[in-house]
Amino acid sequence: MATIGIFDSGVGGLTVQRAILEAVPAADTLYLGDTARVPYGTKSAETVTSYSLRNARLLATHGIDLLVVACNTASAVALPALRAEIGVPVLGVVEPGARVASAASRSGRIGVIGTQGTIASGTYQEAIRRARPDAEVLARACPLLVPLAEEGWTDPADEVVRAVVRRYLGPVRDAGVDTLVLGCTHYPLLESAIAAELPGVLLVDSAHAIADEVRERFPGAASGPEGAHRFLVTDTPARFLSVAGRFLGRPVETAEHVDV
Amino acid sequence: MATIGIFDSGVGGLTVQRAILEAVPAADTLYLGDTARVPYGTKSAETVTSYSLRNARLLATHGIDLLVVACNTASAVALPALRAEIGVPVLGVVEPGARVASAASRSGRIGVIGTQGTIASGTYQEAIRRARPDAEVLARACPLLVPLAEEGWTDPADEVVRAVVRRYLGPVRDAGVDTLVLGCTHYPLLESAIAAELPGVLLVDSAHAIADEVRERFPGAASGPEGAHRFLVTDTPARFLSVAGRFLGRPVETAEHVDV
Repeated sequence: MATIGIFDSGVGGLTVQRAILEAVPAADTLYLGDTARVPYGTKSAETVTSYSLRNARLLATHGIDLLVVACNTASAVALPALRAEIGVPVLGVVEPGARVASAASRSGRIGVIGTQGTIASGTYQEAIRRARPDAEVLARACPLLVPLAEEGWTDPADEVVRAVVRRYLGPVRDAGVDTLVLGCTHYPLLESAIAAELPGVLLVDSAHAIADEVRERFPGAASGPEGAHRFLVTDTPARFLSVAGRFLGRPVETAEHVDV
Repeated sequence: MATIGIFDSGVGGLTVQRAILEAVPAADTLYLGDTARVPYGTKSAETVTSYSLRNARLLATHGIDLLVVACNTASAVALPALRAEIGVPVLGVVEPGARVASAASRSGRIGVIGTQGTIASGTYQEAIRRARPDAEVLARACPLLVPLAEEGWTDPADEVVRAVVRRYLGPVRDAGVDTLVLGCTHYPLLESAIAAELPGVLLVDSAHAIADEVRERFPGAASGPEGAHRFLVTDTPARFLSVAGRFLGRPVETAEHVDV
């Protein structure tokens, strides 16, 4: 059976793994969270690429059949370097998310939210315009949404959640987009709050888009006995384990510390 | 003239350097911001200690006379390891801040806010109780305050600022503290917003407390020609330079990239 290597800057990529496990429950997975150096979203493309290569090299030593870059920022800046070096297929979350949004939008006015690194790279914007040359793309970095989700402050009725989401998404709403890409692995946890601020707007979660691609590659893993799942982290496991279940949607019992 | 080495997880330590430059304007300084691995406040004591040692070793190669640990989280968890290895005096921000708060409080009900790592370490709480055994200490981690300050959202009249500060500090106010330690280098940027939520409460900024100790060690640097200041960062310098002036209170023109 296929083994899928997945890396992320930390815990957020577990929302991608969750979608992948729904799509190919029989696949084995090896997840690496770079929790000692999280976040990537505020760091330069050079530093994120360097960290991504180190993560990928470690996963490659475990005999993976596919590398999934669950981190949007790493997907936005490091895919060419990863593909040049890693000897297995590499999938990032940006292309699938951009493709789904481009196909789904009626008006062609598409919004993208993500980290500073993801938005500054322009990778989502370019991928959407490649898929749909007439698209008008409104991109916005939303640095407070990650710590908000990690605090567990995600209730749409919460005053803090409402105020932060409105500050970032008010201009997106006013611009009249009909489709919004949630371009960061933490944002699905805030989906209800974002939907409340943007009624009628289609929210595209890149996790589901990439999970569909994984299933196309490994159709045999779409059913069968549950695969084995192993978790590696670069910081000590305690904090990862304390929040991992909320992101993966099922308990995570153990994680191993590794140096990369 | 004395050369003071200062390190922080990123840009926040510039608020400590700012206070030091006011106290000893004639000292030379060498500042290292570990911007490739920022933040420290969400990471384990083991990882923060390892990073702190690497930072200190690099600064030690430059012939410093004193090492200032500007990062509260590193001060809270890494001082014993640093003092055991680095051959110059090492000052952290926790002890001075705790001492000032302990002396200033009338009621002995003292609050401390900081990162998750700082608060979980219990170091401020212990330092306050050592200085003042009758103290009642209320400690609270405030993860959203750092990204809030980095966004530049610090206006006390701002709806988002008010909502976040009230969420964290409402329980502190209700507990009736009369003194609050701002146990993170970013928090002085939010001082007005915090003061608005806690009227009548004395806010203790550890930066000023440690600056006084530096002046006691180098009284000759309290006046004289302005010293030379050099800035090193572990990520590429662009983002550091874009916000450094706001934290230091004067322009920062250049920073050099280093690997540690």
